[in-house]
Amino acid sequence: MAIGYPNGKKPQQPNKANAVKKNQKLPTLYGKRGMSLEDDLNDTNAYYLAHDIAVIHKKPTPVQIVRVDYPKRSNATIREAYFKQPSTTDYNGVYKGKYLDFEAKETKNTTSFPLNNFHPHQLTHMEQVVKQNGLAFVIISFRTLDEVYLTMYQNFYPFWQRMAEGGRKSVAIDELRDVSALIPYGLNPRLDFLSVLDKASR
Amino acid sequence: MAIGYPNGKKPQQPNKANAVKKNQKLPTLYGKRGMSLEDDLNDTNAYYLAHDIAVIHKKPTPVQIVRVDYPKRSNATIREAYFKQPSTTDYNGVYKGKYLDFEAKETKNTTSFPLNNFHPHQLTHMEQVVKQNGLAFVIISFRTLDEVYLTMYQNFYPFWQRMAEGGRKSVAIDELRDVSALIPYGLNPRLDFLSVLDKASR
Repeated sequence: MAIGYPNGKKPQQPNKANAVKKNQKLPTLYGKRGMSLEDDLNDTNAYYLAHDIAVIHKKPTPVQIVRVDYPKRSNATIREAYFKQPSTTDYNGVYKGKYLDFEAKETKNTTSFPLNNFHPHQLTHMEQVVKQNGLAFVIISFRTLDEVYLTMYQNFYPFWQRMAEGGRKSVAIDELRDVSALIPYGLNPRLDFLSVLDKASR
Repeated sequence: MAIGYPNGKKPQQPNKANAVKKNQKLPTLYGKRGMSLEDDLNDTNAYYLAHDIAVIHKKPTPVQIVRVDYPKRSNATIREAYFKQPSTTDYNGVYKGKYLDFEAKETKNTTSFPLNNFHPHQLTHMEQVVKQNGLAFVIISFRTLDEVYLTMYQNFYPFWQRMAEGGRKSVAIDELRDVSALIPYGLNPRLDFLSVLDKASR
């Protein structure tokens, strides 16, 4: 006789159809689970580059280098350095002759996006880009919800201004949805933000 | 009686008219002497930004960070890091809606520019930019001659190709002059490469 479990249900039998082997990757979920927004974007940008769709790179993290050891000339080792605040956004590049510039942020929040994820000078930079007729936008990933939005700078800035005028320090997700386009997860490219941008920037 | 010097000449007397006091700066030479090309370009880009002419930034030096100490959260110190080879050019930005991308190099040579100043992937990157209808170019400073040239990628690439086909590993200065525009030194901005670009990219 089988020993019953405390809740009276039989222990669940592994379902062969749904069984996932150790280390097996499920391609349809690959884009969603476990990858950071940065990984998704780097992957997408590599796809764009390989297919002559756009040239977009993430800028290196700015570092103030103080001390470098040169044991050999070919093998310099940085021994003391500090992180500097970036003066621009993280990503820029060219797409069909147009200059693109964007910042990407991730949050685990499910109801709002906290504006302190941005530095004031990043907003200033996007403002300058728009003045030069470049395309500036933000990409915000709600990680827990698996939702990623593209918001043109012109639509994002009013939330920042509201905060500057003493209003709330975050953007409610519904407010953001109203002025943003959802970037659907795909396989290749993983986050096809350019097809979304084509519509959003019209 | 004055003691003669071995060569029979009198010791040179300081000439009051030409005398330069210690630490005195000569404003008309300021743009030319002592400043690196990078300083001149950063200064020029700051001028363009302040006057809403263009938004151009130098990318940070790419660094592979291996070990970081966090004595306090606010004061992270990088203790081990290595220089990485950049995958793009150093400068990019937006000017009247157009994407700009360039690399700047300095040489003390007076008769030619050695092509090994460039990495192959930088040429590849500029090729990709041109395919996307961006403007790609190089700025080459002949430091000893006080001459700085802007050469569109399309005009520069044939020299690279010639080397790849077994030809000379440098560009003779006269060859370069033939396909480049001289960027005159100024006071503000110091190296007005955009006015030169307007003509060169027509």
